[in-house]
Amino acid sequence: MIDTLLNHRSIRKYKPKAIPNEILEKVLLAGTRASTTGNMQVYSMVVTSKPEIKEKLWEAHFKQTMVKEAPVVITFCADFNRFNKWCEQRKAVPGYDNFLSFMTAAIDALLVSQNVAVAAEDHGLGICYLGTTTYMAEKIIDILDLPRGVVPVTTLVVGYPDANPGLTDRLPLEATVHYETYSDYKIDDIDRLYAEKEAMELTAQLLEENQKETLAQVFTDNRYTKKDNVAFSKALLSVLEKQGFMNND
Amino acid sequence: MIDTLLNHRSIRKYKPKAIPNEILEKVLLAGTRASTTGNMQVYSMVVTSKPEIKEKLWEAHFKQTMVKEAPVVITFCADFNRFNKWCEQRKAVPGYDNFLSFMTAAIDALLVSQNVAVAAEDHGLGICYLGTTTYMAEKIIDILDLPRGVVPVTTLVVGYPDANPGLTDRLPLEATVHYETYSDYKIDDIDRLYAEKEAMELTAQLLEENQKETLAQVFTDNRYTKKDNVAFSKALLSVLEKQGFMNND
Repeated sequence: MIDTLLNHRSIRKYKPKAIPNEILEKVLLAGTRASTTGNMQVYSMVVTSKPEIKEKLWEAHFKQTMVKEAPVVITFCADFNRFNKWCEQRKAVPGYDNFLSFMTAAIDALLVSQNVAVAAEDHGLGICYLGTTTYMAEKIIDILDLPRGVVPVTTLVVGYPDANPGLTDRLPLEATVHYETYSDYKIDDIDRLYAEKEAMELTAQLLEENQKETLAQVFTDNRYTKKDNVAFSKALLSVLEKQGFMNND
Repeated sequence: MIDTLLNHRSIRKYKPKAIPNEILEKVLLAGTRASTTGNMQVYSMVVTSKPEIKEKLWEAHFKQTMVKEAPVVITFCADFNRFNKWCEQRKAVPGYDNFLSFMTAAIDALLVSQNVAVAAEDHGLGICYLGTTTYMAEKIIDILDLPRGVVPVTTLVVGYPDANPGLTDRLPLEATVHYETYSDYKIDDIDRLYAEKEAMELTAQLLEENQKETLAQVFTDNRYTKKDNVAFSKALLSVLEKQGFMNND
């Protein structure tokens, strides 16, 4: 099973083959075994396979082909709506319309999503996360009809792989692990930790394609720009407000 | 491996037995194989085992005994500090001091944490998540010496189990899964979905202990109150500001 974790790769090409219901259910069930705060399970999974709805999601997710191609798209949502409704039917007054509650529910949803990813891969399925979920939350809320108290935080496309990519590079373990307390990075540390990544053939390709001098510039100037990040930050904060998670007084 | 997921239970009692380094490293390495946005790996894991530092963390985490008892406490952080430093050393201007970037980094950290949890369990270790991390972020930043650009989002205690609790209940799968789009819950749905949980022996005990009429009231009035949530929301937003994630203009 550790092999399933170690062999993870994101799949961006899928066979036109449906996932049998009993396999999909097993995978979703494995998701629900993840820990959640106080066992409140304040998340939802929206499993979309109808082409006409996937087409709308495809549009929201920057038209990434795999969203149309993969048989199943699962949107993982921070969800206090169900819990709030339960409280209201049980003479209890919920106080979950604030930022802390959003974070609690987002954490639930994300731990569940990773269990679903691992379970899917363990069943021979491929997955890919869509980071565009937080950027385009408002549009996704509209497409999936998400009520107040519900915010999409990540998305998985799932299906049978039609590609067999190699493992993606990772920084050396010492880059992301600190012992006892945090040891901040010195100039030499950064140089050493990024050396292997910077020396990769893929990096040379990216510099050429993007006409940049350094790989870091590919990220800051082209892939994840300040302009986009600021626009998406505003949009996401306004979604949290609209979905009822910003009553912090 | 699906069995590892299906048999997850939170362990709150640990043997006084250290985790061999090679096992700990394997577990952390499995963490780093999780997907991250653009493969930026904008997270850090702070692995604490020294009793004097664990004692401080124990205090921050509401004095839960397992924080002192478990040999290892791993704090998972949203971390743009390393990436920002890399950019600055490579003639690139990072634009990651905003809320969207915090969410991106928090998502990375949480997917990694769940891989670590699963890998640990697969090696016969027990784990428990500490939801107190987001409540007490400011204090944890201080204890672990986290610089600007770094925010703790969740924590795992890890060690050899000294308890063998049964599986915790979950809502039926239909409670958390929606097909195609979100179907909002009707009054009857809520009654049906929570019926099993409400009928449990544990629920009767909790009502007795908390002197409450309904289980929902145990949550709203005692365990996760509006007053606490509002206070923790303010504290967390101020941490995001202080750590440099709220420049959204």
